[in-house]
Amino acid sequence: MNKKFSLNEILEQDTFFRRNFINSITGFKSVALIGTAEVNGKENLAPFNSLVHIGATPPLLGFIMRPVSVPRHTYQNIKQSGQYTVNHIHESFYRQAHQAAARYEGSEFEATGLSPEYFEDFKAPFVKEAEIKIGLKLEEEIHIKSNDTILIIGAIQAIYINSSLVRQDGFVDLEQSGTIAIAGLDAYYKPKALERLSYPKRGKTLSAI
Amino acid sequence: MNKKFSLNEILEQDTFFRRNFINSITGFKSVALIGTAEVNGKENLAPFNSLVHIGATPPLLGFIMRPVSVPRHTYQNIKQSGQYTVNHIHESFYRQAHQAAARYEGSEFEATGLSPEYFEDFKAPFVKEAEIKIGLKLEEEIHIKSNDTILIIGAIQAIYINSSLVRQDGFVDLEQSGTIAIAGLDAYYKPKALERLSYPKRGKTLSAI
Repeated sequence: MNKKFSLNEILEQDTFFRRNFINSITGFKSVALIGTAEVNGKENLAPFNSLVHIGATPPLLGFIMRPVSVPRHTYQNIKQSGQYTVNHIHESFYRQAHQAAARYEGSEFEATGLSPEYFEDFKAPFVKEAEIKIGLKLEEEIHIKSNDTILIIGAIQAIYINSSLVRQDGFVDLEQSGTIAIAGLDAYYKPKALERLSYPKRGKTLSAI
Repeated sequence: MNKKFSLNEILEQDTFFRRNFINSITGFKSVALIGTAEVNGKENLAPFNSLVHIGATPPLLGFIMRPVSVPRHTYQNIKQSGQYTVNHIHESFYRQAHQAAARYEGSEFEATGLSPEYFEDFKAPFVKEAEIKIGLKLEEEIHIKSNDTILIIGAIQAIYINSSLVRQDGFVDLEQSGTIAIAGLDAYYKPKALERLSYPKRGKTLSAI
């Protein structure tokens, strides 16, 4: 039965219902592990499902940080070091990635069994098990007045990827890489390709590419 | 073969390669149709793949608008009317949704064969074919200095959905609704559920819920 949830009806629901509902009505999302380190080298790893493409030239990637009224290691480490990594999650370790969201005193790498990996002089840890790894430096931090969240924008410094995943036109085959998607806060999915479509132009019929 | 793309190597690629590459390395994304109307009633419809969850209380949804150095109907209409709609895309009409990105003089509804639908006194058109429709009012507009894009934040006013899709805890079953996902700019996917996982707590084993 088609139902209207008005703003009042949404606000009248309990917090738990509302979080699940609003987090899932935005559709399938990417989820990735963000790796950071304190200045003393202590590592942190946490899943984020609010990654958003900001631009290709220069290559910029954003994500939403919840209000920092409570301590958030990922935020503190990014502010301190200016560096972080974004690592894809695959079917083989999405449970470990999900578990990395729990509150740990020590490193989430140790707690979940995922392996930190370092490249050259980059200070933040990558996730060895990830097929696609992105190293970023903090570019811009934007306060969102509406609810005190923060948009963190990172400038991509390097991308580590198996070259067999990258098509000639730059497209990355995420089904081949086994990257997973998330809905809401806790539902994991394996996307199956329908098709790639040609560039849309007025008066021109689309074709599969 | 594992390959490193340094920032310089990314910037040396042609624009076409870089757009595909950077748009796809962020992982699977949601894609939805945003419906707006001019004050005179002329309708506009365009696909966006940068939706991001901003918060649940109050319910807020964001998306990235490319620089408005060229006229953008969606942006102009949102600024004028203060209202817009976000509509899920399904397997049955993702080709039409993709085609809605072409430059049309008239309404993309007419051009693509999708049907506008109006609810109560809300001025922006919804997409009748969508199983999940969200009505929003413009809440905040944030300029991103790094590349002159804009984060548009909307306050959810109403959600129209078949109640059979909404689980008791608020989770929306997007596989049942047939919502699709996108990778890059043009690759469409149908996600298949792996599992929902319990809330992650230190020292507690995750279970499927």
